[in-house]
Amino acid sequence: MVENWDDFLFPYQEASNELKLKLRGIRSQYLERGERSPIEFVTSRIKPVDSIKEKMQRRHIDESRLSEDMEDICGLRIMCEFLDDIYTVVDVLRKRNDINILEERDYVHNEKASGYRSYHIVFSYPLQLVDGQREILAEIQIRTLAMNFWATIEHSLNYKHPDVFPPEVHERLQSASETAYKLDEEMSEIKQELDRDLKKQKDKHE
Amino acid sequence: MVENWDDFLFPYQEASNELKLKLRGIRSQYLERGERSPIEFVTSRIKPVDSIKEKMQRRHIDESRLSEDMEDICGLRIMCEFLDDIYTVVDVLRKRNDINILEERDYVHNEKASGYRSYHIVFSYPLQLVDGQREILAEIQIRTLAMNFWATIEHSLNYKHPDVFPPEVHERLQSASETAYKLDEEMSEIKQELDRDLKKQKDKHE
Amino acid sequence: MVENWDDFLFPYQEASNELKLKLRGIRSQYLERGERSPIEFVTSRIKPVDSIKEKMQRRHIDESRLSEDMEDICGLRIMCEFLDDIYTVVDVLRKRNDINILEERDYVHNEKASGYRSYHIVFSYPLQLVDGQREILAEIQIRTLAMNFWATIEHSLNYKHPDVFPPEVHERLQSASETAYKLDEEMSEIKQELDRDLKKQKDKHE
Amino acid sequence: MVENWDDFLFPYQEASNELKLKLRGIRSQYLERGERSPIEFVTSRIKPVDSIKEKMQRRHIDESRLSEDMEDICGLRIMCEFLDDIYTVVDVLRKRNDINILEERDYVHNEKASGYRSYHIVFSYPLQLVDGQREILAEIQIRTLAMNFWATIEHSLNYKHPDVFPPEVHERLQSASETAYKLDEEMSEIKQELDRDLKKQKDKHE
Repeated sequence: MVENWDDFLFPYQEASNELKLKLRGIRSQYLERGERSPIEFVTSRIKPVDSIKEKMQRRHIDESRLSEDMEDICGLRIMCEFLDDIYTVVDVLRKRNDINILEERDYVHNEKASGYRSYHIVFSYPLQLVDGQREILAEIQIRTLAMNFWATIEHSLNYKHPDVFPPEVHERLQSASETAYKLDEEMSEIKQELDRDLKKQKDKHE
Repeated sequence: MVENWDDFLFPYQEASNELKLKLRGIRSQYLERGERSPIEFVTSRIKPVDSIKEKMQRRHIDESRLSEDMEDICGLRIMCEFLDDIYTVVDVLRKRNDINILEERDYVHNEKASGYRSYHIVFSYPLQLVDGQREILAEIQIRTLAMNFWATIEHSLNYKHPDVFPPEVHERLQSASETAYKLDEEMSEIKQELDRDLKKQKDKHE
Repeated sequence: MVENWDDFLFPYQEASNELKLKLRGIRSQYLERGERSPIEFVTSRIKPVDSIKEKMQRRHIDESRLSEDMEDICGLRIMCEFLDDIYTVVDVLRKRNDINILEERDYVHNEKASGYRSYHIVFSYPLQLVDGQREILAEIQIRTLAMNFWATIEHSLNYKHPDVFPPEVHERLQSASETAYKLDEEMSEIKQELDRDLKKQKDKHE
Repeated sequence: MVENWDDFLFPYQEASNELKLKLRGIRSQYLERGERSPIEFVTSRIKPVDSIKEKMQRRHIDESRLSEDMEDICGLRIMCEFLDDIYTVVDVLRKRNDINILEERDYVHNEKASGYRSYHIVFSYPLQLVDGQREILAEIQIRTLAMNFWATIEHSLNYKHPDVFPPEVHERLQSASETAYKLDEEMSEIKQELDRDLKKQKDKHE
């Protein structure tokens, strides 16, 4: 049982601080080299106690098994410019020795029924505490700016209207998600075309 | 003449730090009250020396008049969820006593030829330095997440391909901007519909 | 009456964040110029609710007059290397237009009975909130590293042993404070001697 | 050879950011539990390029072996209230799995000729970079507030007067260091006396 939520959440907050700093460091490294970064920005949040309790009920998670069974108490989010950047970031994360990836879920190509798109990585992070090491479960969501636009607003609407959306609203949101995704594809194509152009001009000059 | 760019930019960096903290404080105040914040997140940047020099040439700005004539050396950006939030933020900024608004430009409803949309506020900020007060020119850009999606990518493409875009690319980017704007309008309409629904339900219960 | 302490303390936290950033900016400005900074480091704290309640009782402050009558809910601390630096910092603060100094208390030369030494400045700070400007009372304590050594430990001993210290402990602490102060004076004298030396050498070379 | 100092120092800056956050986390953990923290505050600095070059010459370190042979390019500092706290912190650091301690030097009990006192730990830190893991050498200095008072001022005097101090100044600084150390011992004794008092009172009540 959780006797004191502040005590319970402390290691998650610490892990979150360390991981956010480390992920922002990836962006810094690309920029320091003079390269475009596949990471545009990084945010983090600790799941509020109310949401933890609500999810325990909904998913039948026992309070004594929270640390093992709830994967997103410590949540990080990485925003990318282009679709390809998502998979570049996934590759970079797979190579790190300071996290142990447990599961990957590609909601970019297999969107949820709501229209939600993102790439999820669940992992454990060995946190050093005064009394020794502890493995902390955490989740990173990787998405484009367009996916983040949609997910932020959908979450905001959901928050204020906690019931299931009326079918018509559900469809309009799905369709908006589809449009946002097509915008992502269009931007990628424009980038590829410009890159081809640039290559041609260079080839001419040689 | 600017003898030392670090010296020249120091007050801009200080002003930027203070203003970013203050704008983030607006968001905190809404959240502390348990309300949705019209500000989703805030970023800032100091214009790199290369860009300052390039703009001086392009706009025929004399180096001795940089502090008076270049308005965006200190740049802040506020991202909003919904179109309406932009104007809520503008109202909140107009009421502040610690900035003096000099000019407002509504590129939300009057987009630039490129397709760029944002609301710009140019203002001066009285910065306290060791040797007294100094007025610093600064610019805030206020935009939705969808506008930010488009502007971020367009800027990134521009950066790598500094020449004028080929006409076909120009048109595709304009059209993508239009689609992003329609997504903003669609999301606002969905929100309004849900708000009306919520009101009806409440009225029934009374 | 204070109905919600989080609501009550929010503006103090905001003011504290802004003031800490601004005071650290003073240090940055000296360093950027290549000069020694009279400010070594800056800390801040919001008075814990328990301490506010205890002080209300002890000082007979009415809860409805907390914002007007309790001056140190928002507390800042500036640490200096040398005794003289304290008065340099006081001068710099007096020139700022963004704070209104209400009272100064020189506990450096008029130490408290406990042996406590610091220079206190009570001031009001015009904070910009969503609903308009609000004057926030705040206190800055300016002290040397040696004074901070003594005050930190005395506070720590007091915290764990909340009763009045036994007379013998009281005297030992007073005497330790005196020794720390003499160390400050000795360090200032050494600095002056070295500065005289340096001047002599320069004069010879000319 | 170091071709670009920004590139060379980037991993040190990253390691420094991560380590400072982690060390501050130790303090947070004590406070969260409602206990006094043996860590009062933490600072960090990257050695300036000028100092690196000066030390390379003085210590005959080859530029190609900088990463292996210069241990304090990434420097961290932990300040403690009481002498005992230094050794508590050392124990906590020895238990961490994310640093590999290479050497410890006890300048607390074996002060340098100058009078300098601190406990030094040299270690390597496995930093995760985009292109894989890299071991970064770093140094932590652990000292009391009184030792920090002395060392800060001595460093400041040294910086402005880079020649060897005149013998008389040297002696006065040594003697000031001795006095500061006796203050540390006196404060520890007062604490022990108060702790004995507290225990006696508790025993009476039982």
